[in-house]
Amino acid sequence: MVMSGLAGLPNPPYYAVIFSSRRTEVGDGYGVTATQMVELAARQPGFLGVESARDVNLGITVSYWRDEESIRNWRRNVEHIAAQERGRADWYEAYEVRVAKVERAYGFQR
Amino acid sequence: MVMSGLAGLPNPPYYAVIFSSRRTEVGDGYGVTATQMVELAARQPGFLGVESARDVNLGITVSYWRDEESIRNWRRNVEHIAAQERGRADWYEAYEVRVAKVERAYGFQR
Repeated sequence: MVMSGLAGLPNPPYYAVIFSSRRTEVGDGYGVTATQMVELAARQPGFLGVESARDVNLGITVSYWRDEESIRNWRRNVEHIAAQERGRADWYEAYEVRVAKVERAYGFQR
Repeated sequence: MVMSGLAGLPNPPYYAVIFSSRRTEVGDGYGVTATQMVELAARQPGFLGVESARDVNLGITVSYWRDEESIRNWRRNVEHIAAQERGRADWYEAYEVRVAKVERAYGFQR
């Protein structure tokens, strides 16, 4: 079970995949597949954590990975490829993916 | 006026500041200040764009910058510092900031 909320991560460096998307009106199967993909990602080698938020304008999911190889492997996962194809066919109006190397991090906790 | 939605960005490399937060129950002044900070960020040298989403669990704002110097300058902006202090005093239960260098990017548009 992947927690929703802030991801607890090791110290940098590590990688972030920023997935920003606008949805279509088509909702069929989206929620189930989105949950499955998070659970599946969490079982991949090199997965460190994930954070996600969606409102009426935009959804942003940031997944965190140990290295670029982990990201490449996840991108080529067969179930993930099927979900990506369904996403382009049905669920997403547009999306942008940015792959970034996290160099520093800091936080605040009340 | 800063558009809400997907940011149109130049080709990488550029920098991303991923700001993930959980809010308190205190709402006083938050919306006005959040909007002001986005407008103010957009007028800083090196600002490239911003994407934001918030739901009941988490808010994620990703701002994009030309280089690290732009990020440092924005972090030290006097009005921004005042807003950060107010955020820690009132609005945020917890937050994490990750500064990352975007190495590659790709997208999809219906």
